[in-house]
Amino acid sequence: MKTINVGIIGFGTVGSGTAEVLLAQAKNLSRKTNLVINLKTVADIMTTALPQKFSGCTLTKNADDIFNDPDIDIVVELIGGIEPAKTFILKAIEAGKHVVSANKALFSTHGRQIFEAATRKGVEVGFEASVGGGIPVIKALKEGLAANTIQSIMGIMNGTANFILSQMTDHGLPFDTVLKDAQAKGYAEADPTYDIEGIDTAHKLVILMIMAYGINIRLEDVSIEGISRIKPIDIEFAKQFGCRIKLLAISRNHGDHIEARVHPTMVPETHLLANINGAMNGINFNGDMVGDVLLYGQGAGKMPTGSAVVADIVDIARNVAFNCLNRVPSLAYLPSEIKDCVITPMAKISGPYYFRISAVDKPGVLASIAGILGKNGISIESVIQKKRRDEGSVPVVIRTHDAQEKAVIEAISEIDSLSIVTEKTVTIRILN
Amino acid sequence: MKTINVGIIGFGTVGSGTAEVLLAQAKNLSRKTNLVINLKTVADIMTTALPQKFSGCTLTKNADDIFNDPDIDIVVELIGGIEPAKTFILKAIEAGKHVVSANKALFSTHGRQIFEAATRKGVEVGFEASVGGGIPVIKALKEGLAANTIQSIMGIMNGTANFILSQMTDHGLPFDTVLKDAQAKGYAEADPTYDIEGIDTAHKLVILMIMAYGINIRLEDVSIEGISRIKPIDIEFAKQFGCRIKLLAISRNHGDHIEARVHPTMVPETHLLANINGAMNGINFNGDMVGDVLLYGQGAGKMPTGSAVVADIVDIARNVAFNCLNRVPSLAYLPSEIKDCVITPMAKISGPYYFRISAVDKPGVLASIAGILGKNGISIESVIQKKRRDEGSVPVVIRTHDAQEKAVIEAISEIDSLSIVTEKTVTIRILN
Repeated sequence: MKTINVGIIGFGTVGSGTAEVLLAQAKNLSRKTNLVINLKTVADIMTTALPQKFSGCTLTKNADDIFNDPDIDIVVELIGGIEPAKTFILKAIEAGKHVVSANKALFSTHGRQIFEAATRKGVEVGFEASVGGGIPVIKALKEGLAANTIQSIMGIMNGTANFILSQMTDHGLPFDTVLKDAQAKGYAEADPTYDIEGIDTAHKLVILMIMAYGINIRLEDVSIEGISRIKPIDIEFAKQFGCRIKLLAISRNHGDHIEARVHPTMVPETHLLANINGAMNGINFNGDMVGDVLLYGQGAGKMPTGSAVVADIVDIARNVAFNCLNRVPSLAYLPSEIKDCVITPMAKISGPYYFRISAVDKPGVLASIAGILGKNGISIESVIQKKRRDEGSVPVVIRTHDAQEKAVIEAISEIDSLSIVTEKTVTIRILN
Repeated sequence: MKTINVGIIGFGTVGSGTAEVLLAQAKNLSRKTNLVINLKTVADIMTTALPQKFSGCTLTKNADDIFNDPDIDIVVELIGGIEPAKTFILKAIEAGKHVVSANKALFSTHGRQIFEAATRKGVEVGFEASVGGGIPVIKALKEGLAANTIQSIMGIMNGTANFILSQMTDHGLPFDTVLKDAQAKGYAEADPTYDIEGIDTAHKLVILMIMAYGINIRLEDVSIEGISRIKPIDIEFAKQFGCRIKLLAISRNHGDHIEARVHPTMVPETHLLANINGAMNGINFNGDMVGDVLLYGQGAGKMPTGSAVVADIVDIARNVAFNCLNRVPSLAYLPSEIKDCVITPMAKISGPYYFRISAVDKPGVLASIAGILGKNGISIESVIQKKRRDEGSVPVVIRTHDAQEKAVIEAISEIDSLSIVTEKTVTIRILN
């Protein structure tokens, strides 16, 4: 049996998970591949000794020991973040190693440089674990759905944000309380900004869009809005409209322009995405031939992410053994076929909206609001006006028919400047 | 650009769909593969002329014209059924052609002979379209989840049965009415036996089990029960228990024995499988590393199934172009690693049950029934006793705690022989 040697840089949660998956599945993988996939070296500056079960593996503090080892075929980068991860990956490529990584922040911002370097050197880059944790979403997109022009991507891609929204929905708790609880339980990081403000979700959307459409796209092209301003009252009103609030990544392919956005969205509760709760992820592709295909599973975690990293290692190991490198292009399309694209301006995106307007409780309020909406070409589907609350203002909740973002921004700015309006209006898009 | 030539046998729904996908996606596929995938020949005894758009393709009534054409690399069998499909596939393999097929009935009953022939000749056999239509479920199992020992398979794998149950659930209609409507609309075949009696679902479960566990298994190993005896009243009681009734394929891996069964199941409505409605399919794998991964999409239809067939064609075309045949074994495990297995006897399978007992409406009925259940070691979780109906008998509905199938069969046989019991008791398993 041929041996493929692997070096891992970074022995934190996912790094040690990957090592454990390789160990636990060694026999299983040989039965499938006729290969021995051997973890030869781990490089980590924090780790002083590897657990006994990895006794066949060398520990080093110097990643160069991996790049300089001619026996190592595949370098697995699992330290995360931009630097030194980027330098390490470029060094590995320069040394002719294949690379596997779960680094969505890096690939969504410096991916082009990395993939161009890999193309020049003829090495492979695997990144299944960068989106959707253990869910084989990238393989599905690149290979299973190859015979499709992807029409849309829509998904819940951040487990922390979905956990927080699910807890708020199930227990009627405010955002801050749930976040603190999630941090205490280890479901949210000390600095949760990337997760709750939609940035991590946008990283993942960028990676999927490149492969789905064969385009160059930058993180800055994505409109991003997080969940920190969502209040229990909005979740309650969503329920009254038969919806649940989810942080969705949405991209629609209009041919000559493509949408790219991340924002809280009211999803009808009959939609499968509304039923993906807790820390789970769900990603839906619509292909012009296949229709909707949704993949669901754990979007993070030591062993699930390790499962995806090892799937990439196996894929590349097979290509090394069969001498068929780059049998499938890293980014789905041949490098020469990746084109620039036009991103749909947010102002032109249209769909139904939820508005929660806080107004003083006196006659004529709804008439003023409705007048402004009408003037801006926004038609109302339904209105809920609640009785006065303690603070002296009442929520006026409006569900609109399809409205263009530009008109919404103008109308809400005008509404918020009314003397009868006491707080900034909350707007949430409704999935159409 | 290298050309890979394809011949299709059978130009019905899926055959013509495959041809249309190849045509519609030709440019897209070349941008991904650097190959021209050319539909060279179609063999069909019923078709007298191909549509104008396939003018570059030869039509023949004789499949030998495909087997004997040295330029054809891949033979796509899409006539379905056992014969002549089996003979055609074996002839294609003998001629050194790679084979793609959607034929679940054939692969689940004569798969071993076909795969052994393919192994001898060193050709590939693709069958993504045989399970879950357009959903890339087989690629996910073989490659995306390669680094897992699969613990269970659970899924809705027949769109017709799911459509009928969904209509019964949404509109309270009886089975026969919905079936006739489905037949009129083309959602169910004139002879719906395979779909409604669980046989088609069992075919698909067999194919998935072979690859999930690396085992030899025969269709006869699967316990099969269909949905034709489900009544609106059972769906109503399921709702009262917070469940929906679904036709599930279930396989659990106990290491030294493996469950294999298809039957109607009450699924808690918070479970994702309970929310897969209409003609859609959903298949859940539990891997020891990744946890649950569920794939959802259209399990049938011309273009979705064509999408899966073409994904297989692309996979094999790449292997031909890169000279890496059998890079991934057809059945996930190396042929030498496929082992015999022990199937768990149904009598030993345990779980909670729903019983609907029809009894005369007089005092002491519940005591008699509860006595028999207790004697057989079956404990009751809840009971619903309805008022007398027109027929003079009342339904006594019981939800049990975990009970072994053997005890259930004995208890129900005893209950049904009571003089107070007026009809055969309906038993439905509840997902635990």
